[in-house]
Amino acid sequence: MTGKRSVFFISDRTGITAEMLGRSLLTQFDLGLEQHTLPFTHSIARARDAVQRINEANRVNKARSMVFSSIIDDEIRAVVHSADALVFDLFETFVGPLEAELKLHSSHTIGRSHGMIDSKSYDVRIDAMNYALCHDDGGNTHQYDQADIILIGVSRCGKTPTCIYLALQYGVYAANYPLTEEDLLGGRLREPLLPHRRKLYGLTIQPERLARIRSERRRNTVYASLRQCQYEVARAKGLMEKAKMPMSDTTVMSIEEIASTIVHERKLRRRL
Amino acid sequence: MTGKRSVFFISDRTGITAEMLGRSLLTQFDLGLEQHTLPFTHSIARARDAVQRINEANRVNKARSMVFSSIIDDEIRAVVHSADALVFDLFETFVGPLEAELKLHSSHTIGRSHGMIDSKSYDVRIDAMNYALCHDDGGNTHQYDQADIILIGVSRCGKTPTCIYLALQYGVYAANYPLTEEDLLGGRLREPLLPHRRKLYGLTIQPERLARIRSERRRNTVYASLRQCQYEVARAKGLMEKAKMPMSDTTVMSIEEIASTIVHERKLRRRL
Repeated sequence: MTGKRSVFFISDRTGITAEMLGRSLLTQFDLGLEQHTLPFTHSIARARDAVQRINEANRVNKARSMVFSSIIDDEIRAVVHSADALVFDLFETFVGPLEAELKLHSSHTIGRSHGMIDSKSYDVRIDAMNYALCHDDGGNTHQYDQADIILIGVSRCGKTPTCIYLALQYGVYAANYPLTEEDLLGGRLREPLLPHRRKLYGLTIQPERLARIRSERRRNTVYASLRQCQYEVARAKGLMEKAKMPMSDTTVMSIEEIASTIVHERKLRRRL
Repeated sequence: MTGKRSVFFISDRTGITAEMLGRSLLTQFDLGLEQHTLPFTHSIARARDAVQRINEANRVNKARSMVFSSIIDDEIRAVVHSADALVFDLFETFVGPLEAELKLHSSHTIGRSHGMIDSKSYDVRIDAMNYALCHDDGGNTHQYDQADIILIGVSRCGKTPTCIYLALQYGVYAANYPLTEEDLLGGRLREPLLPHRRKLYGLTIQPERLARIRSERRRNTVYASLRQCQYEVARAKGLMEKAKMPMSDTTVMSIEEIASTIVHERKLRRRL
């Protein structure tokens, strides 16, 4: 029997790493959680505020809170540890063994990951993202030489978010090309794609899911009808198979999974 | 004295969590690392391949590799642990204490975080990303009612990637509005922004950095000149101050940091 619990993600920077690890672990448990992220906890005063919030949550929930902390500074960490909570200290847990293994001291420097910008990798991400935006939805096909990968698929199968995620997470230059009525009727690859066959990657999706996605925005249209989706998906698959294109079914995949699958399968060079 | 080392991020899904935590920890050490991500290690056979690659790297580097593993299945994890490496097992490290605290057994189910799509949160992310794309660069200002936040700034100060990241990571609806020559000359907020004052957030940047960013794409133009950047940034700041807009200087911030700062400062409701 478990009542409501609070979980706090505390960080001296964005808290994204602590959140990601903590959430990933907590999905292994079937329980209701109230989640709080306390980013930029980079002073003793802020850490004390955090402790107060944690202890207050304990009182309200009548249950001890959990804390995932990625704080680096020793003094600030000590304050966080004074909370009446189960504290998972990502830094302390791993840095000791790393120091022993590497025979090096860690720098104990805040913000080397999501902070204190590495301007080269910033530029790569922005440039790759601009590439994705300029080459979204069949735009600027004459610049496909620069693409690392070109995603093909019917409207709303996940091409755009995947391209953007490929840019942000991996620094990969991804274009996408929608299969239109004309492509589907023709049943083969059109001109701008032909010189880039080796970069093509197909995204497919189950028609039922596609119809649901399309209906969110354009309910009761032919475009969103199951019949239309079935037609488009079947035609698109036929075209991709004929072109011997590698492909993935995105129906039950998250954006991260689609992107990571493509990078892995196609052995794309990561710039990040 | 430390030679080259290899670090492996091994996961039964995308490996993004293992990468993020591992990289964040390793930035604390000043050493050259060769990084490998082995996603979708979800079978004994794949785990054995991974072990082979790790041991091979040890031989080449003449140094023990490091492994960050987020594999959940006990048997597959056991194979990974058989590698001659310093293995950080994210699952094992934290799940035991979590089980004890929660008095629950973990489900040991693969892919509950970045996999096995949670279709509601998928829809939110995609919808928020579409919002960001449709409301990029001053587009569709008549739909600002739906915005959670509207970023204001000169060209290339980081508005677009921040809006997209806000969508992907937080499910926040973010529009952005570029300050053009006309805005800067006028020195005050233009019509479409006036009803939404409380949603406005300014991004500023140091002129030197802005000139460098603009030069990447359009070298030797007035647009990219330091003088032009100085003029625009000064005018933009004046306008934002006059409008009493909250703002951040993005010069040394990563996209994650800008986004996280905005969510935190403006207490935006996260949908993810």
